[in-house]
Amino acid sequence: MSKIISGFSKLTKEEKINWLATNFFNNQPEIIRTIKQYWNVDEKLQQLHDDFIENTITNFYMPYGVAPNFVINGKEYVVPMVVEESSVVAAASLVAKFWSKRGGFHAEVVSTTKIGQVHFMYTGDKQQLQNYFEAKKVYLLEATKSITKNMEKRGGGILGIELKDRTESLKDYYQLHVAFETVDSMGANFINSCLETIAKEFRNDETEIIMSILSNYVPECLVRAEVSCKVEDLGGKNPQGFAEKFEQAVQIAEVETYRAVTHNKGIMNGIDAVVLATGNDFRAIEAGAHAYASKTGQYKSLSHCEVKNGMFRFWLEIPLALGTVGGLTSLHPMAKLSLDLLQNPNAKELMMIIAVTGLAQNYAALKALTTKGIQHGHMKMHLMNILNQLGANEAEKEEMICFFKDKTVSHSAVVEKYAEIKK
Amino acid sequence: MSKIISGFSKLTKEEKINWLATNFFNNQPEIIRTIKQYWNVDEKLQQLHDDFIENTITNFYMPYGVAPNFVINGKEYVVPMVVEESSVVAAASLVAKFWSKRGGFHAEVVSTTKIGQVHFMYTGDKQQLQNYFEAKKVYLLEATKSITKNMEKRGGGILGIELKDRTESLKDYYQLHVAFETVDSMGANFINSCLETIAKEFRNDETEIIMSILSNYVPECLVRAEVSCKVEDLGGKNPQGFAEKFEQAVQIAEVETYRAVTHNKGIMNGIDAVVLATGNDFRAIEAGAHAYASKTGQYKSLSHCEVKNGMFRFWLEIPLALGTVGGLTSLHPMAKLSLDLLQNPNAKELMMIIAVTGLAQNYAALKALTTKGIQHGHMKMHLMNILNQLGANEAEKEEMICFFKDKTVSHSAVVEKYAEIKK
Repeated sequence: MSKIISGFSKLTKEEKINWLATNFFNNQPEIIRTIKQYWNVDEKLQQLHDDFIENTITNFYMPYGVAPNFVINGKEYVVPMVVEESSVVAAASLVAKFWSKRGGFHAEVVSTTKIGQVHFMYTGDKQQLQNYFEAKKVYLLEATKSITKNMEKRGGGILGIELKDRTESLKDYYQLHVAFETVDSMGANFINSCLETIAKEFRNDETEIIMSILSNYVPECLVRAEVSCKVEDLGGKNPQGFAEKFEQAVQIAEVETYRAVTHNKGIMNGIDAVVLATGNDFRAIEAGAHAYASKTGQYKSLSHCEVKNGMFRFWLEIPLALGTVGGLTSLHPMAKLSLDLLQNPNAKELMMIIAVTGLAQNYAALKALTTKGIQHGHMKMHLMNILNQLGANEAEKEEMICFFKDKTVSHSAVVEKYAEIKK
Repeated sequence: MSKIISGFSKLTKEEKINWLATNFFNNQPEIIRTIKQYWNVDEKLQQLHDDFIENTITNFYMPYGVAPNFVINGKEYVVPMVVEESSVVAAASLVAKFWSKRGGFHAEVVSTTKIGQVHFMYTGDKQQLQNYFEAKKVYLLEATKSITKNMEKRGGGILGIELKDRTESLKDYYQLHVAFETVDSMGANFINSCLETIAKEFRNDETEIIMSILSNYVPECLVRAEVSCKVEDLGGKNPQGFAEKFEQAVQIAEVETYRAVTHNKGIMNGIDAVVLATGNDFRAIEAGAHAYASKTGQYKSLSHCEVKNGMFRFWLEIPLALGTVGGLTSLHPMAKLSLDLLQNPNAKELMMIIAVTGLAQNYAALKALTTKGIQHGHMKMHLMNILNQLGANEAEKEEMICFFKDKTVSHSAVVEKYAEIKK
């Protein structure tokens, strides 16, 4: 029986689920129950969430946690984090507390320019195209006035338009390379609307517009976060030894791609959690960050460390194109609440908060890796997850934790041991 | 008043929320209501979700949608997608349907090897280190036996260990570079446990272990997805023109980083949605994919296109380290249901399904960009979101959709027009 269907999107939610149940789940009633148990009891609220995307059948719960004790540029924050990976929030909280006693985090926005491009093909004379562009430039800006009016009131708009000859890379290929300031909005819709209007105005019989689209590569929308203290204030038995080993771990991520990718992945564990919690688009943030990590031609660490003259310094530079207005930020009640919790930051403040969370995550990972090893903390959480899955009670959990204190936690080992203590 | 707190993680969920309400929300009752309205009425189910991470106060709803009509290697699938961005599921569904009538998608797993490393410093004689490693190698493998036993039963394990001299990049820096096969598990815990055990066994007075950790850079865990058909079968008024423009759009993403990043971001819109739905770790997938995109020294498109001899071919190669057992895949009821919906694929099948979803998303984006422009579809969804936010009824929605048919949708323009029709 073919499972190809026409008009699926026009079915009601119930009908969609029934079709899935018949065709993919052998009508198991528990499947339908699982899907529906995640519906909100408030129908109107559920409808709001259903309408965010297409063919919604239910909600996927992502845990919403909070990491207290962040001090950033002297101000105290509790950071909301949406993440499914255990130990991310715990690590952020621990590191936030640690640095709150050592002057906190310092952050600054380096730049906020975003880029969009009209990509086109042109086979004619280059000078003629240049002349056409120069003469047309004022009309390109003029054409976007109705779109840019409100953005300009808020201090943003189009910063400049350049014609770029890229024919050395690809036959007949040119661009209009447009720089934007979008203030507190992420600006995707604004930039794309401007670009499409510019393309329409620019088009003539000799140019073939291929596409008009913003770029998620935003090396000029950059934020820097830092912590520093005297090496001796790092604490522990041997702060100098710890600092040096930590620095070596960062240096390794600066020269070794296999390590750099995971190092940056750890940074993104923190970054994405806040990006998600505040209703921003993590795919855009991820693409921009990793491309930036590869900008020298070799994929490298986004963070850096220096131990010099008795001082420990650890910092991160990352491009973050974020919004605190528009998009999901005001539509998703929990995204809105996250911004409230962060005391309603503007986009620049949010850039700093998120960069700091990434740096904190990286500090936690490097500290764990260079001391106890990453599995120590991970495994405890992993064990708890497996025990929950097995339905262990509190007494059983305690016994299991005690047993695995000095042993390697694997799913099979836990299942085996649990069966033993249940006997 | 300081908002720094000790022992926050030890508070109950209610206490945590009350502390936040007092310190960050001026005790607004609607804030507490918002947080609690997302709790599941089934306390036991809620507890399960609370325990995934730390300091959980509620659930963040991500829309769970489904894209029907995917045909992959002749088999029919409905693909579960967890994504907050509108039009992603709609685009995937449309493209799936389109290609289902043209032979469907074809996919193959190229390789499944994962890498982990023990990073260490050594200042002594290189030949001596090499001799030590050669003599030690068998003991390194021996030491991991208790961990690898079960993995070997399933056909996986450690594939090889190499000593790498990296002193040209960083003074005194060496690695044990270990290759793994983890079959149907993502394998992070397995790999890290093996590496830490290997490091412990390898350590001596002359080596300083810096860290032991898996890599999320997985260029040897690669999958390929493809569609192809006769150019004339692409349909539309001018299939040859469409195919050529489409090919040019892909070529642009192969030579221009600003475009490549967004091109790949679009691929990841599809990929991450399925990664999330199946309980996998999207930060790991993102890091691996974008680093792979930069492997030649220039960040490039992950997909490619060829129009030749009357045939259109469009394909994607992407590294994907996924699990269908372990981790969240079996703990999160909706992740488990997603795997059920996909007819319980093994990790290799899931690699293919996810790569195909990425390719479909990329096809949809390129088709929109090179024909109507990206804003056409986006804006309709964007308009609906704003109207929902404004609380518009069905009749008002229809009037507004009609009004904005040929106009640029911006938040302010919609608010203005809506106020007008409400008068």
